[in-house]
Amino acid sequence: MKFNIALLAGDGIGPEVIDQAVKVSDAVAKKFGHEITWKPALTGAAAIDAVGEPYPDETHAICAASDAVLFGAIGHPKYDNDPSAPVRPEQGLLKMRKKLGLFANVRPTFTFPSLLDKSPLKKERIEGTDLVFLRELTGGIYFGEKGRRDNGETAFDNCVYTREEVQRLAKKGFELAMARSKKLCCVDKANVLETSRLWRETVQAMEKDYPEVEVSYEFVDAVAMRLVQWPNSYDVLITENLFGDILTDEASVISGSMGLMPSASMGANIALFEPIHGSYPQATGLNIANPMATVLSAAMMFETAFNLPEEGKAIRDAVNKALAEGMVTEDLADGGKAYGTKEVGDWLAANI
Amino acid sequence: MKFNIALLAGDGIGPEVIDQAVKVSDAVAKKFGHEITWKPALTGAAAIDAVGEPYPDETHAICAASDAVLFGAIGHPKYDNDPSAPVRPEQGLLKMRKKLGLFANVRPTFTFPSLLDKSPLKKERIEGTDLVFLRELTGGIYFGEKGRRDNGETAFDNCVYTREEVQRLAKKGFELAMARSKKLCCVDKANVLETSRLWRETVQAMEKDYPEVEVSYEFVDAVAMRLVQWPNSYDVLITENLFGDILTDEASVISGSMGLMPSASMGANIALFEPIHGSYPQATGLNIANPMATVLSAAMMFETAFNLPEEGKAIRDAVNKALAEGMVTEDLADGGKAYGTKEVGDWLAANI
Ligand SMILES: CC(C)[C@H](C(=O)O)[C@@H](O)C(=O)O
Ligand SMILES: CC(C)[C@H](C(=O)O)[C@@H](O)C(=O)O
Repeated sequence: MKFNIALLAGDGIGPEVIDQAVKVSDAVAKKFGHEITWKPALTGAAAIDAVGEPYPDETHAICAASDAVLFGAIGHPKYDNDPSAPVRPEQGLLKMRKKLGLFANVRPTFTFPSLLDKSPLKKERIEGTDLVFLRELTGGIYFGEKGRRDNGETAFDNCVYTREEVQRLAKKGFELAMARSKKLCCVDKANVLETSRLWRETVQAMEKDYPEVEVSYEFVDAVAMRLVQWPNSYDVLITENLFGDILTDEASVISGSMGLMPSASMGANIALFEPIHGSYPQATGLNIANPMATVLSAAMMFETAFNLPEEGKAIRDAVNKALAEGMVTEDLADGGKAYGTKEVGDWLAANI
Repeated sequence: MKFNIALLAGDGIGPEVIDQAVKVSDAVAKKFGHEITWKPALTGAAAIDAVGEPYPDETHAICAASDAVLFGAIGHPKYDNDPSAPVRPEQGLLKMRKKLGLFANVRPTFTFPSLLDKSPLKKERIEGTDLVFLRELTGGIYFGEKGRRDNGETAFDNCVYTREEVQRLAKKGFELAMARSKKLCCVDKANVLETSRLWRETVQAMEKDYPEVEVSYEFVDAVAMRLVQWPNSYDVLITENLFGDILTDEASVISGSMGLMPSASMGANIALFEPIHGSYPQATGLNIANPMATVLSAAMMFETAFNLPEEGKAIRDAVNKALAEGMVTEDLADGGKAYGTKEVGDWLAANI
């Protein structure tokens, strides 16, 4: 098969980890007889510096015309202490999500047995943790009307959801639950928020179409607790944009494997794949960043965007082998030898 | 001194744990020569059953005329699966907060050395944790306009904050930081929300009035992570209502001492004190609930509402002694002998 993949390296360590994912993907393509054409495009602070815009139209055109988007990370310290600066990398992220229609952010949290002791949680609490959040990504308070009144003395943000927005996200949640252990948790604040009540009633109405799925409804504050207490009691969780932002980040640190976590953002026509970690500016150019989360994001791309599970598995197997053999960057070296970003990427490509 | 204290026992285990706090408070009053008049009043499901209203006007009148409010817990399973029921215990809670003007919820999370191994987190992560959240409690998306449009197909919740609301909460935060280790963290989502940008700019403008306080600004998703990774890196945190709901609950489970955590909600004229745990309906009437969080809430009442630190310390000392001597309920017994709610209360009162 032939694929065009938009390549958005972004800022900080983005370019370095993206390079390794390209290398590994090319090795997979070669082995399985596919042909990948990479379409690099600017985004984030790098795009602001170059063209004054964090998600330029040209980048959007490239993404929209591709079969998938592979994304590194964006964000640069020079924007960090001024959240009201007129142009910020994050705005590019939000614009990209909206314009590409990426309404479902898929964030797995799972454990690698060899990394359990990296977790802040006790081993017996996290063993076997394997959960997936589906976070709604193009609605809610992120995209509602916002502004000031009373000469700037009053600020407001509107949170809005339509039944249709909830349905398309929940549908992905039910489908994912069917493909996994048939357990779905809808996370909301229906005891306080009207949007949450819409979420809950919409999901409740869909239960009859998936009679095998066992659905539970939990308040966001309770989930914030139970995620730390018994993360392995969850399987598929669906939630709205802001709750998802908070809970997926919370969940990411419990597994101890945060540096390895991939993610996907899916829309009707296109999907984007990226590591959950940020642009880690301090490490830029040092050849120390762990490329595995990005490489595993490429595995998710083969599996979910191209429907090629064998190809995805080849990548996962290589990563597992690297972990077992200590072919790791310094974050995972634990006193043993640490390899560079590029060396780990080369090794993974050679082991496909 | 003479005090009138409104006594809102509420639902579930509320009445049992409140009884112990009354006993202990009376012992303190006796020892230090104070006179307490308790003013019991209905609230929660108990109030709905009795008068059809979770926070009746009569209860409000009693609270408003008191020197402080001591609160148990509210919530009953019969309301749990229908968040859109016309009358719910939670509505009473929100109405009470609004009508009493309780704008600042004070939620400490600290560790008891003897309970460290109850935490889901590794010991070295939580040792020394001693943080306090100040959660804004009468504004934000909880109290903004909410409703439906398009024949119920679209739902909305408005999040609104005024500079004044932020200032009065932040002022308490700066003052608390001055009385503690002079570190204040403002938690927001200023990279996305206009209300958060108002929070941040308001707090930034107040920094000059407290030159000794070191202020940091962190995004809510980052705090959700770091609370699990390094809870002991925080001291005083201030945040808006919904973020506070999620983060204070998350923080409460990390210490391993959740069953012992008190809280206060303060307004301009009156303050309310309550354990952070819920109504725990399954344990109702079984004489097994741990009364210590409620007893420690009474300690906070003496300290902060009545400005009587000695009296508060007498209660804390009794609780520490009970923990050291194994005079505990089953949740803390760990294979040793477990005492009843009432027995622990009697022992604490006798040891004042
Ligand atoms: C950078 C920020 C706007 C973004 C978000 O809140 O969605 C980030 O935290 C994320 O989760 O991808
Ligand atoms: C019961 C609910 C309305 C309440 C809240 O969200 O404020 C509770 O979770 C709390 O934190 O006191």
